Amino acid sequence: MVPTQHQIQHPREQLTRLRTSELGAHVGERVRVAGWLHARRRLGGLTFLTLRDGWGLVQVVAEGAAAAALDPGPPAESVIAIEGVVTRSAQAPGGLEITAPTVEVIAAATVPPPVALGKRELKAGLATLLDTAVVTNRHPARRAVFRLAAAAMAGFRATLLERDFTEIQTPKLLAAATESGASVFPVDYFGRTAVLAQSPQLYKQMMVGVFERVFEVGPVFRAEPHDTTRHLNEYVSLDAEMGFITDHHDIMALLRDAVAGMVGAMRARAGAELDLLGVALPEVPATIPEITFVEAHELILARHGVDVRGELDLSPRDERWLGDWAREERGSDFLYVTGYPTRKVAFYAQPNPEHPEYANYFDLIFRGTEMVSGGQRRHRYEDYLAVLAERGLPAEPFAAYLDAFRYGMPPHGGFGLGLERFVMQVTGLPTIKLVSLFPRDLHRLTP
Amino acid sequence: MVPTQHQIQHPREQLTRLRTSELGAHVGERVRVAGWLHARRRLGGLTFLTLRDGWGLVQVVAEGAAAAALDPGPPAESVIAIEGVVTRSAQAPGGLEITAPTVEVIAAATVPPPVALGKRELKAGLATLLDTAVVTNRHPARRAVFRLAAAAMAGFRATLLERDFTEIQTPKLLAAATESGASVFPVDYFGRTAVLAQSPQLYKQMMVGVFERVFEVGPVFRAEPHDTTRHLNEYVSLDAEMGFITDHHDIMALLRDAVAGMVGAMRARAGAELDLLGVALPEVPATIPEITFVEAHELILARHGVDVRGELDLSPRDERWLGDWAREERGSDFLYVTGYPTRKVAFYAQPNPEHPEYANYFDLIFRGTEMVSGGQRRHRYEDYLAVLAERGLPAEPFAAYLDAFRYGMPPHGGFGLGLERFVMQVTGLPTIKLVSLFPRDLHRLTP
Repeated sequence: MVPTQHQIQHPREQLTRLRTSELGAHVGERVRVAGWLHARRRLGGLTFLTLRDGWGLVQVVAEGAAAAALDPGPPAESVIAIEGVVTRSAQAPGGLEITAPTVEVIAAATVPPPVALGKRELKAGLATLLDTAVVTNRHPARRAVFRLAAAAMAGFRATLLERDFTEIQTPKLLAAATESGASVFPVDYFGRTAVLAQSPQLYKQMMVGVFERVFEVGPVFRAEPHDTTRHLNEYVSLDAEMGFITDHHDIMALLRDAVAGMVGAMRARAGAELDLLGVALPEVPATIPEITFVEAHELILARHGVDVRGELDLSPRDERWLGDWAREERGSDFLYVTGYPTRKVAFYAQPNPEHPEYANYFDLIFRGTEMVSGGQRRHRYEDYLAVLAERGLPAEPFAAYLDAFRYGMPPHGGFGLGLERFVMQVTGLPTIKLVSLFPRDLHRLTP
Repeated sequence: MVPTQHQIQHPREQLTRLRTSELGAHVGERVRVAGWLHARRRLGGLTFLTLRDGWGLVQVVAEGAAAAALDPGPPAESVIAIEGVVTRSAQAPGGLEITAPTVEVIAAATVPPPVALGKRELKAGLATLLDTAVVTNRHPARRAVFRLAAAAMAGFRATLLERDFTEIQTPKLLAAATESGASVFPVDYFGRTAVLAQSPQLYKQMMVGVFERVFEVGPVFRAEPHDTTRHLNEYVSLDAEMGFITDHHDIMALLRDAVAGMVGAMRARAGAELDLLGVALPEVPATIPEITFVEAHELILARHGVDVRGELDLSPRDERWLGDWAREERGSDFLYVTGYPTRKVAFYAQPNPEHPEYANYFDLIFRGTEMVSGGQRRHRYEDYLAVLAERGLPAEPFAAYLDAFRYGMPPHGGFGLGLERFVMQVTGLPTIKLVSLFPRDLHRLTP
């Protein structure tokens, strides 16, 4: 065999590139780092650069001719490599800086960034941040949000895998709208109309018949024409479903563990990001307090003098009040509301066998906002036929789904958790649009 | 607080349900198992049931009145619980059976399954298997395929996370077709036309500017009107992208590790499934052999007397021949083909700096079928403008994407691997449609 291209063409650098996070172990050594020119300032005869790589920042100090050569030097956000000596410095952020640098420009930026990225705070309006997400997502405070989301997702997955759940991917292209409620996006599928899945609900239920325990992490699509701070038209749903449960309390215990796993993974994998954002993680109690829908209405009447007892749902204000109560009276950022009226919830929700007007359904309220819905599902074929008839829904579009129940399904249940909404609540960001890398809303399909 | 519903309503069973996989530790004990009635047969005065749960199968033997009560008993696939004594039995599959059973029907099946699930082999045509996937996916041999896919995915993710890649989710709803090649599905997005992402390519490249190293596991959508054994219109793509590389060989090394991680996870997490399917996993060499496109043509001429030297791509037959060569001459199930003609590959592929007519692009051939494409990408803004102009492509639809390069991007590259195609090749299944839980093809949007 003749030599491959690899062997004949690519001499590599002498110094191996280190990450900024690795420099502490190399004080006094000459090293190579590479990344983006994050910030630059002159002070006396010195030029201070900040280099940003995928793992952090490091200050670089040049003096004399080297300092002059960097003024103006390459534009901000240029990709550069720096070789220099790792030096302790009490003044430098992180206590280290690189001195006696040589700077190599790997790829010069051709325009200045639309927003100054070198500042600790990113000063720009929401529209600018979203329009220029390609570059503003590079800012440490923006990047930290997405690292937290990745950590939360990893914690969710680890929790479910430890409990022997099987990860699945269900189709996002569906033949017809098989779920009541939110509207769907139509797709031209080879001349037929398909729709985008707004939830893996029906498929994950079917899969209980195969694996007993399944979870999915994937996109869902909601064609709701609302422009709010807590809705996205495409978001990441963390879904789980499990068979052979007694009732919804088994699911509530599972969800509690999943949330604890998400919070724990944020702490373990993204401590620096939490510090950077000043985020205080919630404590997840061993048992999350629970209140029934009826009790919640009584409580709101007693505490706030507002009578919502006739309502079929909780308003955002009610959720906030209940969140306040949970924190003040139960010391918990989390609260389960159970026992919603059966006629209010999705047709697949299992009624409470002793009080069928209430369903074995729950919402999880986190810091005053509903974050997760879940519950026990109906598992008998005849119950599905009955509830569809009762609600005047045709059975035909659900035929494939209903088939699973004809062939024997155990009592089961699950939940769906919006990743972005969870991270929004944890970080306290003012809008969910800042928790999606490239949010999709009523007006936004780019970038 | 009044007692919650949980405290007052749900007495639990005395015996905790065990999984079939846990019975070996309970020989001689009375236990409870639950699952699906997988198979039943009578022999003399005995009735043998096979119970299937999410983890395996167990044989149950009833005699006397108990045996008579099970004839006919509940239909196949009914959900049942059995209490009985775990007993060693040389004849029983797995060496254990449950004797002296009592059987409780949790949810009776209302119709017999369309295909007998209780047999070792699932005897049905492809159309039947796909039409009734809701129930045929329950068969141990079908379920094993999806467990292997889940294991492969977990191995991919673990490999990337160990190397400090950040997991991302990029939008599936895009404003316009920004990728050449395969066609896209149009979506009605609030009265505008959006398209479904056929790859996270452009977004994952942009994200190198944020995280340096990213990966994504998610659905992609290809509106190609082909009905073949190796294409799906929706599939799961495992994508990675990384910055600060020297060239495509860094990506080839990463992909080698990812594939080794996938194979290793299948071995570690799904050994029983591999046995059941009789699958021999490939060995992943420490370095996967490499051949250039030009060398591949010469080799095909020398070994097969067929001159394909003018071609711009490899045909499936060529790939098969190269796969044979790799196995026979290099002892490898895997082969990299590098150095494709630049004008043949995607516009973002980085040309070889010394021979710009060839690109730093590769395909990974696995057992004679192309499974992964990847390579180094262009990273300079002006190079993108030049190649788009050269190919007569407008720059406008790529504006948001190109922006990332105006703000400084390092040399980078990555790959995209179709999960279903990988599992198809590992298992030797005759069509990729049997590797998707609910495949989407030209004619199939349900179940």
